[in-house]
Amino acid sequence: MANTDSIGIRVFSLNCWGIRYLSKQCCQRYARIGDTLCKEEHDIVLLQEVWSEKDFLSLKKKLASCHPHSHYFKSGVIGSGLAIFSKHRIHDTFLYRYSLNGYPYMAHHGDWFGGKAVGLAVLSIGSLTANVYVTHLHAEYCRDKDSYLPHRVVQAWELQQFVRHTSAGADVVILGGDLNMHPEDLGNRLLRVYTGLRDSYLETDKFDGCEDGITLIADNPFIRKKDLVPFEKGIRIDYILFKGCSKTAIFCDSMCTTKGCIPEHPFPYSDHEALTTELRLVSHTPSETGRDKQSKDQDSAAGRVAELVDIVTEARTEVKVGLHCAERMRYTAARTGALGLALLFLELAIAVVPWLAPGTEQPFPSISFYLLAALSFAILLTTSLLYIFYTMELKSLQGAEDQMRLAIGSLQEKLRGLPLAQLNNAQLKPPGGQEPSAFDPEE
Amino acid sequence: MANTDSIGIRVFSLNCWGIRYLSKQCCQRYARIGDTLCKEEHDIVLLQEVWSEKDFLSLKKKLASCHPHSHYFKSGVIGSGLAIFSKHRIHDTFLYRYSLNGYPYMAHHGDWFGGKAVGLAVLSIGSLTANVYVTHLHAEYCRDKDSYLPHRVVQAWELQQFVRHTSAGADVVILGGDLNMHPEDLGNRLLRVYTGLRDSYLETDKFDGCEDGITLIADNPFIRKKDLVPFEKGIRIDYILFKGCSKTAIFCDSMCTTKGCIPEHPFPYSDHEALTTELRLVSHTPSETGRDKQSKDQDSAAGRVAELVDIVTEARTEVKVGLHCAERMRYTAARTGALGLALLFLELAIAVVPWLAPGTEQPFPSISFYLLAALSFAILLTTSLLYIFYTMELKSLQGAEDQMRLAIGSLQEKLRGLPLAQLNNAQLKPPGGQEPSAFDPEE
Repeated sequence: MANTDSIGIRVFSLNCWGIRYLSKQCCQRYARIGDTLCKEEHDIVLLQEVWSEKDFLSLKKKLASCHPHSHYFKSGVIGSGLAIFSKHRIHDTFLYRYSLNGYPYMAHHGDWFGGKAVGLAVLSIGSLTANVYVTHLHAEYCRDKDSYLPHRVVQAWELQQFVRHTSAGADVVILGGDLNMHPEDLGNRLLRVYTGLRDSYLETDKFDGCEDGITLIADNPFIRKKDLVPFEKGIRIDYILFKGCSKTAIFCDSMCTTKGCIPEHPFPYSDHEALTTELRLVSHTPSETGRDKQSKDQDSAAGRVAELVDIVTEARTEVKVGLHCAERMRYTAARTGALGLALLFLELAIAVVPWLAPGTEQPFPSISFYLLAALSFAILLTTSLLYIFYTMELKSLQGAEDQMRLAIGSLQEKLRGLPLAQLNNAQLKPPGGQEPSAFDPEE
Repeated sequence: MANTDSIGIRVFSLNCWGIRYLSKQCCQRYARIGDTLCKEEHDIVLLQEVWSEKDFLSLKKKLASCHPHSHYFKSGVIGSGLAIFSKHRIHDTFLYRYSLNGYPYMAHHGDWFGGKAVGLAVLSIGSLTANVYVTHLHAEYCRDKDSYLPHRVVQAWELQQFVRHTSAGADVVILGGDLNMHPEDLGNRLLRVYTGLRDSYLETDKFDGCEDGITLIADNPFIRKKDLVPFEKGIRIDYILFKGCSKTAIFCDSMCTTKGCIPEHPFPYSDHEALTTELRLVSHTPSETGRDKQSKDQDSAAGRVAELVDIVTEARTEVKVGLHCAERMRYTAARTGALGLALLFLELAIAVVPWLAPGTEQPFPSISFYLLAALSFAILLTTSLLYIFYTMELKSLQGAEDQMRLAIGSLQEKLRGLPLAQLNNAQLKPPGGQEPSAFDPEE
């Protein structure tokens, strides 16, 4: 490979845990985050959970000289929490709101109110066009019995769709954020294998950070250790992913994470660790040519497509579980609504008695009567709203399942046109240190 | 220009008005639509307002031999109503739900319940990749006082963003659907100028259809003439748009629309007219080269960018009007909610009186007491829901406005780098019959 031109870029990602008045030491932490960003002068800063626009604006003011370009993505009731700061000009932005994102009545989890989404910013880095994505997926509150799993799988599905379909014109693709998925979780595999995005942590030889690259560590004072069980030390759920294109190769020279408290301060930046990745972009002139290389590429592509068929099939199964659950919930809402309606009719019948037979007394104490009427109204209203909500959830799940079915058919068709040599060698991880072979099933 | 290779494709688009049990002669019309599609064998069929999946499935069954590939886009409560049938293999699909789409309490308008969206299907036509989009925007119920205008402008903004960002890898881009916008409406200009999409009706020399290409005609028996006032004959709100790429030129050989009733039947296919466009794709080898051409291209690009700055500025103003309105509505909801809360506290105070002074009688008739309590609860609940809804509307409007502001800045920057010769000649319509000069401000 002939390296003609090389550009280095440093990318930073952090889930800021910025819930005003609720998150601990929020102001102090933002102040430290701002200081560090000013000092470090990363090329691209991707932040999540910046829930208050005021905090974004104060960061923007602080970073005005080192990061003159920025964008705050708005969505949902509270916002998407996503922000990007950049040394390089942001030409264009676009936001995709995930179709599923938890339930509004699970207010204590709060995910629904923050309209989870993926934000895209199109940057010019030298002569290159970089598509930079920042995202935050639905949290996992209980790994053993994760009722949000179908939602998170659909989010991962939509995320890979969004990245694949919007990145065709980009020389460089960088995605950072809190995926709320462990490295080998279904959604993570779906995202990595379908888009060809590579994981900084896995790609670099020079890593400095917590053991196993964990980004939610047990030692963090803002975390309750019992929430991490059975992962004693912590989990890795924050990522910086990247890929190049046929013209541009991209390498991860080094990666580091923070390891708890900020030096000389008794608290860390957030309940998550911050990630910093040094990427190197190199003009790409493939030196290995001829039939051998071509055949190797095809073999590897066949392996990847086969792997992808398995992953999408697994995702489809998960979505079907979600569908089954949403159908049951909608049925329960409908049945409860019917009971409310029956109660209301009963009330009306009781109310009509003194009218029809003027001599008889009201057969029911009036307080209970009115309370029951209010109750039946409340039941009717709540179940109607829930019925509408579950119908929308069903439509989104069905839509994702249809898309997955179509994708599997298309991938299988593609597979029939590829050599089958390495079909049984389908490997999960992209071979470390190898040249980027960004896999695009559409090509 | 050297034409080396040429492929003809026929595209059909129809808003089917398929509301089961409500739309007139729904079954008969679907039967005729199916017959015509079977007979005509278009390459690509784009349908809107196929609100029932059953109708889609029966069409799918009927068209199985002539259009073996299809996809039904699901969204919202009822669905998106969008469907695509194709002779050519659909490899991939993706759906973008518009962030704003009317109000759920405007149930008689119904738009909110049909989750309006833009569907993308990636097709292979010969060796070419075609990105085919089908969409349906929020209806216009009153042109003079169109309260949905900001929503429709944001939908047009998101539509152009979606098309621009997802079509970089495509050789051909085709967009069909009911835009609910007149040819020179703001959203339509925004879409056409930003994406470089060209309008079949304006591009062809061979048009057969209603006068001025209108697709909602006064003679249609399903339409109330007074809804069209002041447009006596009708309006043009359905479109088939297209563009090629640097490698592929695309021409519109002919276009036609239906003209009311189906031949030998007393009713038309729908309340909209159907559109059919014959497109010709030609491998593109530009013959005109050298400095002259380059300078002409740059001049034209500068004109377009200047025009775009004006259009996006106009769109931003419209979004600001929407923002102002949404803020007012949210304030009204908050104030009404506060009144509901005050009423509730008053009730509680009244209820407490007999407790505090056991001798005194209940100072309020109990029926009125309970009715008022129910009323204050209902007010509180409704205003809380409305407050949440308006906050989400505000976030979406603010998000669109932020994106527009950023885009204007970026376009102005681009303008500074372009020759200013033709800045004052910014023309609205793409020059008819000219070669496609798909304008991409990102390049």
